[in-house]
Amino acid sequence: VPLRASILTVSDRASAGAYPDLSGPEVVRCLHNFNESQGQPWNLSILTMKVVPDELETIQEILAEWASPSHQCNVVITTGGTGFSRRDVTPEATQPLLQRTAHGVMTMVQQECSKVEPMAALSRGVAGVCNQTFMVNLPGRPKAVQESLMVLMPMLTRIVQDIND
Amino acid sequence: VPLRASILTVSDRASAGAYPDLSGPEVVRCLHNFNESQGQPWNLSILTMKVVPDELETIQEILAEWASPSHQCNVVITTGGTGFSRRDVTPEATQPLLQRTAHGVMTMVQQECSKVEPMAALSRGVAGVCNQTFMVNLPGRPKAVQESLMVLMPMLTRIVQDIND
Amino acid sequence: VPLRASILTVSDRASAGAYPDLSGPEVVRCLHNFNESQGQPWNLSILTMKVVPDELETIQEILAEWASPSHQCNVVITTGGTGFSRRDVTPEATQPLLQRTAHGVMTMVQQECSKVEPMAALSRGVAGVCNQTFMVNLPGRPKAVQESLMVLMPMLTRIVQDIND
Ligand code: NA
Repeated sequence: VPLRASILTVSDRASAGAYPDLSGPEVVRCLHNFNESQGQPWNLSILTMKVVPDELETIQEILAEWASPSHQCNVVITTGGTGFSRRDVTPEATQPLLQRTAHGVMTMVQQECSKVEPMAALSRGVAGVCNQTFMVNLPGRPKAVQESLMVLMPMLTRIVQDIND
Repeated sequence: VPLRASILTVSDRASAGAYPDLSGPEVVRCLHNFNESQGQPWNLSILTMKVVPDELETIQEILAEWASPSHQCNVVITTGGTGFSRRDVTPEATQPLLQRTAHGVMTMVQQECSKVEPMAALSRGVAGVCNQTFMVNLPGRPKAVQESLMVLMPMLTRIVQDIND
Repeated sequence: VPLRASILTVSDRASAGAYPDLSGPEVVRCLHNFNESQGQPWNLSILTMKVVPDELETIQEILAEWASPSHQCNVVITTGGTGFSRRDVTPEATQPLLQRTAHGVMTMVQQECSKVEPMAALSRGVAGVCNQTFMVNLPGRPKAVQESLMVLMPMLTRIVQDIND
């Protein structure tokens, strides 16, 4: 199954260059490692990586563009902006784009993650489908990215296959 | 407690006669078996069974009719159309009818089912109340129907009682 | 961290004086006990307690007022009106006020509670942020209040800190 991913890091500080973006690269590392460890079930390509500040309109414009048929990705993963801080608006930017919501996927990710990190339940991320693209909001910390993806990745093959069915 | 159920199978292929509907009958079988095994707590009747294609408007019209006071059912169970395929729109047809949503019920069903079937989290089904009728979206596969109902059925007596309270 | 809570008991009967409100005081007792047992991490104050009938507009007006900047609370806890009965509308009164929803918090509370009380999944409560105030709907029974708060309270410090970040 072709898995063409675009990855959006949402962080005021990484975007301003106050520190390097570690979360986006962690998504890439996890996707590659999982693909290798499973005997390369995915024909994996990383189409685009971008770092933006916690601005609702900026986030939403990029997600809408990435989900458009002209962009070739079928999976969009965001990292950051899912918490309770004033600036955390990634779920609010994502939700209006979702034509079909996948609460169950996000719940499974959070419930599993909360077994090792009780505060995982505080992520407000959403997941679902926009056009033929699966979108999911991961938390910002690289460790949370990894823990979330360990739960999510085994579902991705099936999700991407079904979306194109 | 009177449990008057109507059951909607959503499937392009079963609706076209490409194969027989096994999912709707599986709902009936599970309801009857549970009722027997529990000493008949429900005064159970199956009011209507119908098979329709994965068309949002068709699904929504039937659900709205079944939830209207003129139709006597207090539980509507759908099966099928809850996944990620292009044609899967049962949750989108159901959600706008729900005056009161019951996320917790659906989450419990999915979390329990995912213990035996990890892909259970991919069901996007919703549950809630329209008028005095409880509506719930189950997946399409008969085995998933059975596993979901094993979790849902012990809650049904209380839900139906409370709805009429 | 300053935790300034306002507590709304939603109950037709308690509001009419048919029985005393036990649920609101149970929230207060749990907050105080937790704070003591944890070495007073919170600078805890109970700003307002109120008992109202299960009327959507009444509930919503009070919640909106409590979430306004002129009211000093940063946590609003409701108890009651989260079930399936005709009069249960607390979630419907709360949801439109939430600028940012926190499904994960509510799911965690319900999933943990359902381990001791299977019917906990029937609570339809929501949680999220309105202005700088965290709002959460708890069930009405004092025992359910206690069980829910045991799961919720360890998250409250972090939520309140983050909201003001
Ligand atoms: Na695309």
